[in-house]
Amino acid sequence: MTVSDTVSSTKYSVSIIGASGYSGAELTRLLLKHPQVELRELYAFSQAGNSASELYPALSCDKIYKPYGGETESDIYFLALPHGEALQLVPALLQAGKTVIDLSGDFRLKSVAEHEQFYKQTKSPDAVMTYGMPELYHDDIRAARAISNPGCFATSIILGVAPLFLGNERWKKALAINCTSTSGISGAGRSGKTELSFSEMSENIRAYKVGTHQHTPEIMQALGTSATSPSFDFTFTPMIGALVRGIYSILNVQLDSPAEIEDIRRLYREFYRNAPFVRVRDTMTEVKHVYRTNYCDIHIAHATASGSVVIVTAIDNLLKGAAGQAVQNMNIMLGIDETSGLL
Amino acid sequence: MTVSDTVSSTKYSVSIIGASGYSGAELTRLLLKHPQVELRELYAFSQAGNSASELYPALSCDKIYKPYGGETESDIYFLALPHGEALQLVPALLQAGKTVIDLSGDFRLKSVAEHEQFYKQTKSPDAVMTYGMPELYHDDIRAARAISNPGCFATSIILGVAPLFLGNERWKKALAINCTSTSGISGAGRSGKTELSFSEMSENIRAYKVGTHQHTPEIMQALGTSATSPSFDFTFTPMIGALVRGIYSILNVQLDSPAEIEDIRRLYREFYRNAPFVRVRDTMTEVKHVYRTNYCDIHIAHATASGSVVIVTAIDNLLKGAAGQAVQNMNIMLGIDETSGLL
Amino acid sequence: MTVSDTVSSTKYSVSIIGASGYSGAELTRLLLKHPQVELRELYAFSQAGNSASELYPALSCDKIYKPYGGETESDIYFLALPHGEALQLVPALLQAGKTVIDLSGDFRLKSVAEHEQFYKQTKSPDAVMTYGMPELYHDDIRAARAISNPGCFATSIILGVAPLFLGNERWKKALAINCTSTSGISGAGRSGKTELSFSEMSENIRAYKVGTHQHTPEIMQALGTSATSPSFDFTFTPMIGALVRGIYSILNVQLDSPAEIEDIRRLYREFYRNAPFVRVRDTMTEVKHVYRTNYCDIHIAHATASGSVVIVTAIDNLLKGAAGQAVQNMNIMLGIDETSGLL
Amino acid sequence: MTVSDTVSSTKYSVSIIGASGYSGAELTRLLLKHPQVELRELYAFSQAGNSASELYPALSCDKIYKPYGGETESDIYFLALPHGEALQLVPALLQAGKTVIDLSGDFRLKSVAEHEQFYKQTKSPDAVMTYGMPELYHDDIRAARAISNPGCFATSIILGVAPLFLGNERWKKALAINCTSTSGISGAGRSGKTELSFSEMSENIRAYKVGTHQHTPEIMQALGTSATSPSFDFTFTPMIGALVRGIYSILNVQLDSPAEIEDIRRLYREFYRNAPFVRVRDTMTEVKHVYRTNYCDIHIAHATASGSVVIVTAIDNLLKGAAGQAVQNMNIMLGIDETSGLL
Repeated sequence: MTVSDTVSSTKYSVSIIGASGYSGAELTRLLLKHPQVELRELYAFSQAGNSASELYPALSCDKIYKPYGGETESDIYFLALPHGEALQLVPALLQAGKTVIDLSGDFRLKSVAEHEQFYKQTKSPDAVMTYGMPELYHDDIRAARAISNPGCFATSIILGVAPLFLGNERWKKALAINCTSTSGISGAGRSGKTELSFSEMSENIRAYKVGTHQHTPEIMQALGTSATSPSFDFTFTPMIGALVRGIYSILNVQLDSPAEIEDIRRLYREFYRNAPFVRVRDTMTEVKHVYRTNYCDIHIAHATASGSVVIVTAIDNLLKGAAGQAVQNMNIMLGIDETSGLL
Repeated sequence: MTVSDTVSSTKYSVSIIGASGYSGAELTRLLLKHPQVELRELYAFSQAGNSASELYPALSCDKIYKPYGGETESDIYFLALPHGEALQLVPALLQAGKTVIDLSGDFRLKSVAEHEQFYKQTKSPDAVMTYGMPELYHDDIRAARAISNPGCFATSIILGVAPLFLGNERWKKALAINCTSTSGISGAGRSGKTELSFSEMSENIRAYKVGTHQHTPEIMQALGTSATSPSFDFTFTPMIGALVRGIYSILNVQLDSPAEIEDIRRLYREFYRNAPFVRVRDTMTEVKHVYRTNYCDIHIAHATASGSVVIVTAIDNLLKGAAGQAVQNMNIMLGIDETSGLL
Repeated sequence: MTVSDTVSSTKYSVSIIGASGYSGAELTRLLLKHPQVELRELYAFSQAGNSASELYPALSCDKIYKPYGGETESDIYFLALPHGEALQLVPALLQAGKTVIDLSGDFRLKSVAEHEQFYKQTKSPDAVMTYGMPELYHDDIRAARAISNPGCFATSIILGVAPLFLGNERWKKALAINCTSTSGISGAGRSGKTELSFSEMSENIRAYKVGTHQHTPEIMQALGTSATSPSFDFTFTPMIGALVRGIYSILNVQLDSPAEIEDIRRLYREFYRNAPFVRVRDTMTEVKHVYRTNYCDIHIAHATASGSVVIVTAIDNLLKGAAGQAVQNMNIMLGIDETSGLL
Repeated sequence: MTVSDTVSSTKYSVSIIGASGYSGAELTRLLLKHPQVELRELYAFSQAGNSASELYPALSCDKIYKPYGGETESDIYFLALPHGEALQLVPALLQAGKTVIDLSGDFRLKSVAEHEQFYKQTKSPDAVMTYGMPELYHDDIRAARAISNPGCFATSIILGVAPLFLGNERWKKALAINCTSTSGISGAGRSGKTELSFSEMSENIRAYKVGTHQHTPEIMQALGTSATSPSFDFTFTPMIGALVRGIYSILNVQLDSPAEIEDIRRLYREFYRNAPFVRVRDTMTEVKHVYRTNYCDIHIAHATASGSVVIVTAIDNLLKGAAGQAVQNMNIMLGIDETSGLL
């Protein structure tokens, strides 16, 4: 039997706007048990009046969803709203001095033109916030007061190829990346669409938005190029499969010169040596390996004499792909342990 | 190498009203390959203008769904409509001398009061057609021109207990039947309800309408009693589980005297000796055993000295529980092989 | 922002014998994050030499499985072994003054004859430990040094009917209970049996051991009667369905007199008023509602004028049905918050 | 009502060696209802003595599996054996003048060196049979007496890219093909491996044999090049996902010059204009679209100005990927309707 140290902690008050969707529910679950946080309000327009427990009994949370009316009672606000809605709410929250983490695509893209092309919405040039991918922008996040949380597909792809683009001079020139990513159906949100029903999706796989998915410019931006004027050929085929959670990405990268698989693995390990939630694995990863965790698993599966490399990544789309990464960003902003509430 | 006999066949023309739901699609599949039938029109209001192949590519059927406007061009009409709609259409079809098989609950119940209680609809006392359960009413079906096709749960339950009620004087007195039946989610129809989405139903089971399901009076009627004045205690708990097709029923029957399990099996085998689609099995049955077949598997699993008997039945809800049984009824009405197009 | 109190905690050292199965892995997950526990050794014969992370990457636990050789280094031992093995190991652990929680069926039954009938093993009459169902035996558990953790099906059934049997004089006389319970496939253990493969179990349901399941005497014992000389008719039909985790039980109880559904609900609420992990719910429960939680949800779904009652319960078979309940028992034995590490 | 023509048919006798696996069971199902075939013997060593119905009740086939002992009673033999076994049996069958269709990889590769590298087995240079892909080699198949049926992944990939390689001079030069294919778990056979259990594979996806799968040389051979000395860069990432049946392939082809998507679609339609089981579709295909059919669906999903093309294909791995294609080959060899027994 051992006696632990005495612990003293400060609790920040947190509220969620858009708390009734799947990402909102995961945020609720994580924040309820986060040791340095006190979850205060759950805002959700369509479910206003219902309790979180009614919609998600596994949460066992009696808080009542309320319509958001501009309240600023909390220290920190997470926004998990449909694309376009955060654009309206964030300015006032920042004005009131709040810390903001937005899970939508509204503030991710620096290029207004690309935002308009891929999201079919206009936005002003200053509607950009620090891109909350801790493994790439840790210091920026530490210094920020407002974070745009990455997209789920984007997370699984950027983390899978970043070391080749950002980590090393030697392989900087990729000629092409082909990405095929399968997402769990929860990625489409809490939805009543016929094509997402159990009867349609059990035993099924379906590709969609091939070459046109809105995470494309986000990925290109993070890799130092752009969707409209890319420095390499990029093809992205998103799919949904017969699973609720998870994203499994196969990343085929064509380098401009041959690479030894062990050299690549070494590069990745070095690149992510301080990243608590990236695991560079020697053996194949699976969706199940990261299920209900905040990890991104990366396995360099294959490399050929012609410079072709196959990288496999796995994340839980609702955690590292959404709510988990959002909490990780909050931890970094607050200067507390990056893994707090996430292990 | 053998040479088969020369075959000559007559083809009946058939149309489906309500062809775009799951039962309608199964009817389409079965009738397209039925050797004595020519599938003519597919009527479906909400999908009018689309082809069957657009909605169900596996059918590979280029017919275009049309809104039904009172046409009577075919010999036989199958109706696979939401409850209440067939009540409006059937009289004119019968007036025009057509053969009709209705898959809804509209014409199943003789008791207008029970119909109103369980379906929340009024109907006239003569809105009753021959109950199309071939294993019980083969001769009536043979002589009929209009058939009310049984409900899916009802089929799995009635076939599972009928021999004890209708087959033998000895065990005629059942004191109680408790039924728990798990259905595939396709039983809820081609639907966009959130609670039937993959994200909600994967890894899930949900009971509903406990004690109040509309198949209750249908079951009681077939067993020679009634829901309002039952001659034994009847409890029915329907569930949906994480599967698309199938119904698995556990039937706990309390007899008024002990029964040897082998005697019961013998009774069932005798009762169903001429039923090509009922298999009384010595070993446990599973949903998979009847998947995409018209069989109803029955296994007498347990019998105690106190007269308690456990019977397990399995059907495919879209076949023996809907489209398959409907085609079986058509075959009987036409005087052709009962199994034609169903093996 | 609020400042929390200073906290001081004592940590008990804990080891798991049989750590590589699904229950062992859940114990590992729970104990790794339990605030008052330090997880020390993971014993697992067949996986000796592998790390927990190799077998269960989601655990992210680098401990190496070791073969158990009689070590007694920890304060508390959890045993999650195949039936029969704990019988050999527990005496020495108790002799060494250790706290023991056994998840197998070895020490559950007081009747040696029933143990031999249902487990096909002999055991000595003193091989019985306190039955670890906190909602029934909280004080006994508090005082015990060795706990036999309940079976998964047994938990879902006993909790579902206990108030009717143990909670109130009025309805003490049940004439019959029919139970049908569907378990997730993880209940069969980490297994390579063909009949548990994805290809066989997807879209499937299968009943087994109808009337002969080994949890039968455990249930009867907890309800104050016995399997060999029962005071009421008891039928139990276990099933496995197409889900990994969860048990969903439909309990049909025939009382000797009519009961109002609201009276029963009141009785249940009163009976479980101090039970933090039992939720008596007014609306239907589902497997998903308790997924990855230690809750047992209970819904009184139906009651008739003839005294027939339908109760629906849901648990996660690996948590309230195994590892979660085991940790709950540990918490009670240690005198710490019953919910510690479980919310 | 219409009267059909008089029909006369010849029946060939057929037997299956290796009838108890999933491909063998699908062959059994197809051949039992094939109008020009009489299914005679089901050979299966490990299941000898059991009936087909015991193993696959949905087949409702009372034939008893027998160990194969060199019998030659049938006109046609299908072999669905583990790799390596057909090599031993086929010579005697051919010697006896039998028609042979082998579903294994034993006779697919012309290169003995590649066979040894990918199958870890030696074979003689004459152990090659006509490659049974009807859409490419219809005339050869028509003239053949022995067919090597294509692999499941190979079918979904070759059909997806063949027109670009074999159909047109213009795009003959592909610089690279990246294939990611997800297979249903039945592709791994009727197996009791832990990693294929429901508990491991539900909600999971797993890549394997990246860059080393044995279908690689088969694909390269069909495309007119070789695995050891390829004329373009080829990367293949096979996966299994949480579904029983189906293969979904995403084929990223890098052409040496830009292509208009409509030109490619036109090329594909022209290339497959006589292929009854290939459907070039304008809209996205899904696994469900070809479920339990012999179709290969192909959708040209994307084409860029840089010459990158994304092609999506879907097949049922047990039908077009195995048993269905085998029957299609038989139909062609017999000179009967290519679709007989397959619609």
